[in-house]
Amino acid sequence: MSAGDGIGVGLIGTGYMGKCHALAWNAVAPTFGDVARPRLVHLGEANAGLAATKAAELGFARGSGDWRRVVEDPEVEIVSITTPNAFHAEMAIAALEAGKHVWCEKPMATSLADAEAMLAAAGKAGKVTALGYNYIQNPAMWHMKALIAEGAIGTVNHVRFEMDEDFMADGTAPFGWKSQSASGYGALDDFGVHPLSLLQVLVGPVTEVIADLAKPYETRPVAGGKAVETHDIANVLFRAGTVSGSLLLNRSAWGRKGRIAVQVFGSEGTLAFDQERMNELQLFEARGAVANQGFRTILTGTSHPPYDKFIPAPGHGLGFNDLKVIEAHEILKRIAGAPAHIIDFETGLAIERAVHAMARSHAERSWVRVGS
Amino acid sequence: MSAGDGIGVGLIGTGYMGKCHALAWNAVAPTFGDVARPRLVHLGEANAGLAATKAAELGFARGSGDWRRVVEDPEVEIVSITTPNAFHAEMAIAALEAGKHVWCEKPMATSLADAEAMLAAAGKAGKVTALGYNYIQNPAMWHMKALIAEGAIGTVNHVRFEMDEDFMADGTAPFGWKSQSASGYGALDDFGVHPLSLLQVLVGPVTEVIADLAKPYETRPVAGGKAVETHDIANVLFRAGTVSGSLLLNRSAWGRKGRIAVQVFGSEGTLAFDQERMNELQLFEARGAVANQGFRTILTGTSHPPYDKFIPAPGHGLGFNDLKVIEAHEILKRIAGAPAHIIDFETGLAIERAVHAMARSHAERSWVRVGS
Amino acid sequence: MSAGDGIGVGLIGTGYMGKCHALAWNAVAPTFGDVARPRLVHLGEANAGLAATKAAELGFARGSGDWRRVVEDPEVEIVSITTPNAFHAEMAIAALEAGKHVWCEKPMATSLADAEAMLAAAGKAGKVTALGYNYIQNPAMWHMKALIAEGAIGTVNHVRFEMDEDFMADGTAPFGWKSQSASGYGALDDFGVHPLSLLQVLVGPVTEVIADLAKPYETRPVAGGKAVETHDIANVLFRAGTVSGSLLLNRSAWGRKGRIAVQVFGSEGTLAFDQERMNELQLFEARGAVANQGFRTILTGTSHPPYDKFIPAPGHGLGFNDLKVIEAHEILKRIAGAPAHIIDFETGLAIERAVHAMARSHAERSWVRVGS
Amino acid sequence: MSAGDGIGVGLIGTGYMGKCHALAWNAVAPTFGDVARPRLVHLGEANAGLAATKAAELGFARGSGDWRRVVEDPEVEIVSITTPNAFHAEMAIAALEAGKHVWCEKPMATSLADAEAMLAAAGKAGKVTALGYNYIQNPAMWHMKALIAEGAIGTVNHVRFEMDEDFMADGTAPFGWKSQSASGYGALDDFGVHPLSLLQVLVGPVTEVIADLAKPYETRPVAGGKAVETHDIANVLFRAGTVSGSLLLNRSAWGRKGRIAVQVFGSEGTLAFDQERMNELQLFEARGAVANQGFRTILTGTSHPPYDKFIPAPGHGLGFNDLKVIEAHEILKRIAGAPAHIIDFETGLAIERAVHAMARSHAERSWVRVGS
Repeated sequence: MSAGDGIGVGLIGTGYMGKCHALAWNAVAPTFGDVARPRLVHLGEANAGLAATKAAELGFARGSGDWRRVVEDPEVEIVSITTPNAFHAEMAIAALEAGKHVWCEKPMATSLADAEAMLAAAGKAGKVTALGYNYIQNPAMWHMKALIAEGAIGTVNHVRFEMDEDFMADGTAPFGWKSQSASGYGALDDFGVHPLSLLQVLVGPVTEVIADLAKPYETRPVAGGKAVETHDIANVLFRAGTVSGSLLLNRSAWGRKGRIAVQVFGSEGTLAFDQERMNELQLFEARGAVANQGFRTILTGTSHPPYDKFIPAPGHGLGFNDLKVIEAHEILKRIAGAPAHIIDFETGLAIERAVHAMARSHAERSWVRVGS
Repeated sequence: MSAGDGIGVGLIGTGYMGKCHALAWNAVAPTFGDVARPRLVHLGEANAGLAATKAAELGFARGSGDWRRVVEDPEVEIVSITTPNAFHAEMAIAALEAGKHVWCEKPMATSLADAEAMLAAAGKAGKVTALGYNYIQNPAMWHMKALIAEGAIGTVNHVRFEMDEDFMADGTAPFGWKSQSASGYGALDDFGVHPLSLLQVLVGPVTEVIADLAKPYETRPVAGGKAVETHDIANVLFRAGTVSGSLLLNRSAWGRKGRIAVQVFGSEGTLAFDQERMNELQLFEARGAVANQGFRTILTGTSHPPYDKFIPAPGHGLGFNDLKVIEAHEILKRIAGAPAHIIDFETGLAIERAVHAMARSHAERSWVRVGS
Repeated sequence: MSAGDGIGVGLIGTGYMGKCHALAWNAVAPTFGDVARPRLVHLGEANAGLAATKAAELGFARGSGDWRRVVEDPEVEIVSITTPNAFHAEMAIAALEAGKHVWCEKPMATSLADAEAMLAAAGKAGKVTALGYNYIQNPAMWHMKALIAEGAIGTVNHVRFEMDEDFMADGTAPFGWKSQSASGYGALDDFGVHPLSLLQVLVGPVTEVIADLAKPYETRPVAGGKAVETHDIANVLFRAGTVSGSLLLNRSAWGRKGRIAVQVFGSEGTLAFDQERMNELQLFEARGAVANQGFRTILTGTSHPPYDKFIPAPGHGLGFNDLKVIEAHEILKRIAGAPAHIIDFETGLAIERAVHAMARSHAERSWVRVGS
Repeated sequence: MSAGDGIGVGLIGTGYMGKCHALAWNAVAPTFGDVARPRLVHLGEANAGLAATKAAELGFARGSGDWRRVVEDPEVEIVSITTPNAFHAEMAIAALEAGKHVWCEKPMATSLADAEAMLAAAGKAGKVTALGYNYIQNPAMWHMKALIAEGAIGTVNHVRFEMDEDFMADGTAPFGWKSQSASGYGALDDFGVHPLSLLQVLVGPVTEVIADLAKPYETRPVAGGKAVETHDIANVLFRAGTVSGSLLLNRSAWGRKGRIAVQVFGSEGTLAFDQERMNELQLFEARGAVANQGFRTILTGTSHPPYDKFIPAPGHGLGFNDLKVIEAHEILKRIAGAPAHIIDFETGLAIERAVHAMARSHAERSWVRVGS
């Protein structure tokens, strides 16, 4: 049996996100020092051989070639679901029905109906659910949220979000599944859910949208050239209550590698952030002598919880994978009945609704109310 | 008479832009060394006393309290118009009818009808017209244009423009004329024309738009509070032919002082620029070893004409006012019959049409074709 | 017994660096997937109770209140030493004499004699030794090293190093042990060893030095004020063979949190790096059209090993603690007989010699040859 | 005769700096509006033809092929000297003896004896002298000075200066006069005087130095290769009273174009500046909540005099040549008997003394007191 006497963990999937969950479950007790070390109980993979190999590597006591055995394992108390999106709904619902907590990677599901079924199952089970929106776990983001809440920039009236990467930027690369409509809308659902999770945390839900999706390449190479069905670019204007905003997404943006640029404008200041410099936060406060005002580059440090659990000196830098450790800890807090900073299935569904409203807005070339 | 045997210059208005034109006319010959020193002939101001004082200060031979005397002065060959926008049409048309070239500050006019009349007058007169879109004169912008033209970033497929300042950000400042509808739409015409001039130069004209204008403050202080009639924020999605884009404008953006952020995405690279760092250009080329790719910060220098006319060493920095000197020089080139880099009344009118289409799109809550 | 069938690990000390080693030992197998999961065997702390608590938290099978039991534990094959610097020598020598490999935090020791004794013990034992110079493990640093080696910037002729933090910047904070000469020279040994480890990796050893140590505060508060005995600022000029350089250290530099700024100048280009933006690298290559030259900001990614073992997408960001996981992996490689990227006791001693030569140079106000 | 009834100006030399002076004399009245427009009286060049051409281009009433005629012209009240450094002393002394004020480009002279003679002549003449240290005229620099004076960063205890360009970086370029010892020491006098002028303004004079000059290339191409006699790199540690500091100069620093990086550390904060981003200033104040502290990027604007004389909106950017206009204005203020911000021959001599002390320190391989 694996070391630790904490919560019993099952993991389904060992791609990057599976590894990332495993690293988080291994690190959460040493890092935070306030939770019992989780028992890594059962790992599910496509076949028994791979499951055994990965169990040894990732520190799990046993592995199975059938994910249902993980879900049903009585020692498992929480299930990490890191499989392709199309499997999320079935697995999450099965886990909830088996009385397990669920930590499921985003996006929630591939259809609105699936996401709704997941929420219904969560309601029935009364278990903790969490979606893997790890960008919200950045201490920089926690601090932005706190600054907004305490009025550091006054009343928020405008926001801008950009998310850009370049893995679809090469128009000479062969046509692949991400260019097929079966994979979704394109940048909109591939990327949009991330900035929307930040918007949710910083400001609240989207209420009305107008979207314009675009194709940088009409065709991509394959015998004769094949028409691209998804939109690698998505541009959206929205309202989130009284706040006006924009959401600009581009997965064919040469040179951008992990850019999530956030600008939040308020009546007394401005906040800005870029995930490519995830340990920095920009704050402008319209206070004091005008001659000394400017955007302040705040390096996250020990005064920005829970940075201090990782490193006792400021400005030394957390990494992307560290955010997952924070996420695991927040889930453990929620399970223990404490307030926690996670996006559960209910909020996750609101994000999905916003995305689908955007897609409809593009199709109809008109403004669409979210939830209508 | 003023020194110089070059073109005879008349100037109307001595606010900041008037001063800026005067500085440019004083500096263009020493800077470029290839044009005869202009004769600063006649300056027009609100009254004769101020006109005389300003003429001495700015180096003009004489001044008048009536702008019509400047326009009619036989020694004047070109008229700089730097008065409030509402006067542009009348003055420009008078100058053109008097057979003078016209250098008019932007925006072109306060109504589309006026702008159309200006273009008609220009057509009849056969004289050179130029609008004061000085941001296009930045050597960084010339170089971006050249890079795009030579295919450095492949085929452009997406652009983003932001323009932000904070002179309207203080919601506790008293209600002023910029909040009255008589002043225009708000950020849209106040700011929008600048990025649109850059778009025009880099990509071409806007063809279709959807806009969402917003008010960060519904009221501003005055006895009892007064409803704000203009929109300090404007968000626009657009198409410029096959290129998709966004235009985000905010004149209540705390901390932004002169931000004009440009991102141009192409099939082989990306260009970026921010006017607040006007001597820098960002270039990403999807070439060479991936491990060594990155955005390159190009400091403008002697290999970016006409920087070398100002300073013989790279990276030493031009200023905002220097752009006006380049603009003056381009106008002189055009007058001399050479190709020049200016926005004349015809292109200026296209920019005005785009702005008005955006306003209509907001009012009608729907996509609008420009020129329809 | 702890999960895993890999190397047997003993850990002495559970302060920040102890935790960091523990996290690394927990993460190295899941992260890299090419080493057997280490067995976390035995943890040593100041007393048995704390040792037991920490063993559970950090995933060790057992704990002891006496570090000698860790060193002597037959299941332990490598000992992580993370105690205060004064204990390094005794513990490392004992571990080596017990036939264990040693991973010891930096600096090596508090006296040159101790460091020499450690190297002697290593030589006798024939075991692998490594010092915890984790900054050299940054994929950005590996890439800088590779770029220099392949001639990307030609022949290196000049380097500059700065290291700055602000934990001693508050002159009103009470006099503490870091201001006592018993703690060492001050910034010189506290900080200097880090940039010297980078210099060692990028260029080679220091050969000649002139140093000027300085005190920003002559006294610090305590009853009546107490004379500060250490130097929070250290400035050094040096030669490393034919390369000229500078080393500027300041632990009272307000606002600097983890700055290690590196500039490497060569005959064909320049490299720059700042630890506060540890996922970025600046490269200037004097190649191609001058108009397009500039410093390139390279975001580390999957083409910069071993970044890809942590995250399969570029630009997402590693953290400080991740460097320790790489260090652990390098040590395992070395133990397995493969080439590895570590600073062993021999190179560590060269770094110590340079630091002591700098201190002597300051005392004697003259140039000093290292090793003389 | 040239327009204007202000001070009568003579200019000797029309290379870049001559042009820069001419532009400044043309612009100072329109820009500031508080001084009479200077009369551009007499221009001196190598021969009469060039003098006449340049006079017309730069706006001077007349030109001469003999500089002595400029100096002796009764209408000339101030002489701008912009010829090669070797001529400064003779011309400045002649101008002073003729009862003219002198604005001389830096460095002051090519020998200490010449500089001393210039100061003596100034003392005898009782006229205003100014050296062309234009970097000190940047509103960002004025503001740094004001911030230090008002205690924004407490007591200054440490400074760092770097100045880097790359015009000597190409080791394959032919041997030229800058590599001959007749041209001076190399980077030390070529560059060093600039940062020393900033140090003078911000902190005060250098008192003790140790220098290490270096050659990135021992030889440069010419038939057979020729030994380089000057040092393109200069590294200096210094004390300026109680302040410790470093001065690092490199004119073979690939990619650096006009870098003058300044860091000023105080007991309550830090200031930083880089000439390549000359419109920005970095300020860290150790005040308020630690979680919100950070380096603030202050864009110069209308609250940083005399920026407002150039542009009425903040953040729009001054250029290098604008600094010369400020310098001209400061000189006019001094001539009018007002306090002004210039480096006169007395302070200029102190800078020269520091440079020569550094050269001696390098030669003697030891610390040298300045002025000893």
